[in-house]
Amino acid sequence: MGLTMKGAQAILETLHRGGVDTIFANPGTSEMALVRALDDVPGVRAVLGLFEGVVTGAADGYARMAGRPAATLLHLGPGLANGCANLHNARRARTPIVNLIGDHATGHLALDAPLTTDVAAVAAPFSCWVQSVASSGAAGAMAAAALTAARAFGGPASLIVPADAAWSEGAAALDPPSPISPPAPEESRLAAAHAVLSKFGPRTMLLLGGHALTERAQQAAARIAAATGARLASETFNARAARGRGRPFLPKVPYFGAAAEAFFGDVDALLRFGARSPVNFFGYPGRRGVPLRAESIDLAVAEPGEDAVVALEALAGLLAAPPPAPPVPPPLPDRPVGPIDARTFAAAVARRLTEGTVLCEEAITASLGLVDLLAHAAPHDCLELTGGSIGGSLPLATGAALGAPGRKVLTLSGDGSALYTVQALWTQARENLDVTTIICANRSYAILAYEHLQIEGRPPGPNAWPVLSLDRPVLDFVQLARGFGVEAVAVDTAEALDDALGAAMARRGPFLIEARFAPPAPGA
Amino acid sequence: MGLTMKGAQAILETLHRGGVDTIFANPGTSEMALVRALDDVPGVRAVLGLFEGVVTGAADGYARMAGRPAATLLHLGPGLANGCANLHNARRARTPIVNLIGDHATGHLALDAPLTTDVAAVAAPFSCWVQSVASSGAAGAMAAAALTAARAFGGPASLIVPADAAWSEGAAALDPPSPISPPAPEESRLAAAHAVLSKFGPRTMLLLGGHALTERAQQAAARIAAATGARLASETFNARAARGRGRPFLPKVPYFGAAAEAFFGDVDALLRFGARSPVNFFGYPGRRGVPLRAESIDLAVAEPGEDAVVALEALAGLLAAPPPAPPVPPPLPDRPVGPIDARTFAAAVARRLTEGTVLCEEAITASLGLVDLLAHAAPHDCLELTGGSIGGSLPLATGAALGAPGRKVLTLSGDGSALYTVQALWTQARENLDVTTIICANRSYAILAYEHLQIEGRPPGPNAWPVLSLDRPVLDFVQLARGFGVEAVAVDTAEALDDALGAAMARRGPFLIEARFAPPAPGA
Repeated sequence: MGLTMKGAQAILETLHRGGVDTIFANPGTSEMALVRALDDVPGVRAVLGLFEGVVTGAADGYARMAGRPAATLLHLGPGLANGCANLHNARRARTPIVNLIGDHATGHLALDAPLTTDVAAVAAPFSCWVQSVASSGAAGAMAAAALTAARAFGGPASLIVPADAAWSEGAAALDPPSPISPPAPEESRLAAAHAVLSKFGPRTMLLLGGHALTERAQQAAARIAAATGARLASETFNARAARGRGRPFLPKVPYFGAAAEAFFGDVDALLRFGARSPVNFFGYPGRRGVPLRAESIDLAVAEPGEDAVVALEALAGLLAAPPPAPPVPPPLPDRPVGPIDARTFAAAVARRLTEGTVLCEEAITASLGLVDLLAHAAPHDCLELTGGSIGGSLPLATGAALGAPGRKVLTLSGDGSALYTVQALWTQARENLDVTTIICANRSYAILAYEHLQIEGRPPGPNAWPVLSLDRPVLDFVQLARGFGVEAVAVDTAEALDDALGAAMARRGPFLIEARFAPPAPGA
Repeated sequence: MGLTMKGAQAILETLHRGGVDTIFANPGTSEMALVRALDDVPGVRAVLGLFEGVVTGAADGYARMAGRPAATLLHLGPGLANGCANLHNARRARTPIVNLIGDHATGHLALDAPLTTDVAAVAAPFSCWVQSVASSGAAGAMAAAALTAARAFGGPASLIVPADAAWSEGAAALDPPSPISPPAPEESRLAAAHAVLSKFGPRTMLLLGGHALTERAQQAAARIAAATGARLASETFNARAARGRGRPFLPKVPYFGAAAEAFFGDVDALLRFGARSPVNFFGYPGRRGVPLRAESIDLAVAEPGEDAVVALEALAGLLAAPPPAPPVPPPLPDRPVGPIDARTFAAAVARRLTEGTVLCEEAITASLGLVDLLAHAAPHDCLELTGGSIGGSLPLATGAALGAPGRKVLTLSGDGSALYTVQALWTQARENLDVTTIICANRSYAILAYEHLQIEGRPPGPNAWPVLSLDRPVLDFVQLARGFGVEAVAVDTAEALDDALGAAMARRGPFLIEARFAPPAPGA
């Protein structure tokens, strides 16, 4: 390797020196120098996604599990746009990702060729940092800056790479700065939290999010809870939460506003660790958007991005809280029988989940009661749809399997949800990833039919129902999976689901189970 | 219907009065009032797409064929982002589309709920007009404004609809202004064109785009060519071009820069009708971006958006050009035999295409020689990937079939291309659309492998090749199609392709043919 290199090589080499070993890619002509640079920087392995939403979602899953940033390689504004929905989820998860987005050569941009767009404008709403490489000489430094920004801001950093900056010589790789630890929260907030706990005791809730959902942080939270009577909870959607037997039970803030209001009904003080102030997912006519009572105390002991683990351990220390007795493992649910519904589905998952599983959860209405049963399940990590942008779980699982080699990944997806980025199955087959996918096939956008009933006071009529139903024609996920190279079976009883899931967890490699849910009530 | 109505109903009713009868939709909770309004405005039929790229591409295809705008219904910033790649193609095609994009209720926006994004910022790079409905009282007027803008600017007009503006009463529908004709070009440009033709004669090229590719406009162009010796051509990618036997042969400006330079090599004067000044698709090291010689005259007789038909007919009149003798229909190609390659594929398509077919073409390398053979084919309309954003053709075909009922639609897609928005097949099955899809399965991003060779001077190496190849595992499009409810066959000889296509053109309803191309040369 000479003293100078092409810009593309400097970018990949710099990222590699910064710990990036995987780049999820769907390139085009304007990224050809970056593609070629893969052969010059073999320490960075490229993983192809057939669609950009797979690429960005997989980068998110990889980074959530590996604990270090992944990179993406995307083609111009439209290719980036295809990846933005899952970048949105990554941004809400505070997942560090470095997006490399090719653009036309500098001289070509002004010609407004057919694929020209304002790439920076496309990236901005879904990135925490957007910059462009001005020339090959700046390539290494800009790659280091992007990596630093992704880590520091916690989210996607988008580096636009004009084709000429990539293909030109005169670049040099450099060593990015080492990652820095998140800042510790101010002492005054610990003292305030201590005072709140002393005053409100069991009417206090500790709301955990982000790194406060690691096993270590949860143990500190459990000490605080045991010493004060305060209750524990997690946010509704979490980037990564340690759950299962032997760990504190963390109910989630309910998704629907009325349930969330009830959840917080007797909470006089909320202490947040890595969690945002609770907000309902959507606004509804005549309902306020914040479920916590207005007169309740709402204190961020550690804001998202601050060191919530340190905060919890310091607070437990202030309280001189001893470790609580380990929770008694609740019994596993019985083998479910009969039709597949949310209850029998949750039982099968809780029973069959094996220790160390990475659970990627986007089953929507099918998983409304799942979190309670997961307390019975073997210890696992749960990755959720942090930004609510549907179509996250199959890509997330794909990346998680690469970011946590040796661990089983289990994806739970609605049928509607799975269809946004179903191409992820092909990458799972290509990489022979140990991912089991359960499609909860209820043949409708069930949550929307429910919302229609709630908001409009009636089920959808004949002209509206076709945009909420998926039953004509019936989607055959077994054929879809096989088309992408993944083995699959369909089941339509809880017993068969329980058996199929047991077998799937015991094998290795990608596999899909279409769980055919009992038909919904007529007209709803 | 009362004097006032909800904002959502006023929006749909106003669009309906303006001639919109179809809305392609993938809604979410924030669009529930718009979904409900479908039941109040039954004249607008909703067509569900499982992914937003299907929705926007179908709206594009519908409007290209129906000659009037379609609407879309999209969910917040991420849902819109999923549809942006095909909105990019629609913008480049100058296709009028009204996007209705739901947003959080006004009071909810400030809470920064998980799905919150800057919707206007997401829309801007892919729209010709972006506005938000301030309140239900403005809903009807804003819908009319969006429709007017989509027509006037020629492209997607994005109307952001906050949930409360949709669900609140106090709105009224109104009658949008009638469409206005495109402006006629200035007389002085006709005179200049006349002078150019007199001086340069056969060294003049008439470059046709947009509405200059209607049959009527082409006949006027043929008169000019016959009278002056000028040559005719079309842009590389066209929104809708009448082609086939009995119509003037319009070679396309070649895709690759070197070939385009040769194409324009002896052109001293270019007269453009509805076409933009030629620009290479991508910039390359050491090659200029404009293929026309710098010293050649480049005159827009009718700019895109101006009335190119009037311009061509006026110029033909100035020249007193008589109608040329109808072109002698060239013979149909022989029945192709042997392996499937670009040559035998093109022969099968040209032979089997039936009169009135709508051809949606995105076969990339498989179609490089197709346009020559299409001159032999039965008269048809050809819809192309105007913005170069891959994944357009399956959705485009879906919308075209709805916008041109009674006409056969034939889609030609690369295997890689088809995978971006393959979910369109389900909508084809659900709506029982008369669409035959041929997947040109060469099991690679063949054009990128070619570009790598051209730009880097060598084929991709072991770390780069995996992002350009689709051969591990092999994609089974027959199973994929069946999974979406579409019948399918695979063929691996030209004879079998010819037979399968003949049978597909004779039947009705959606059908897919996986044409397995001969393997590429090793390593490329």
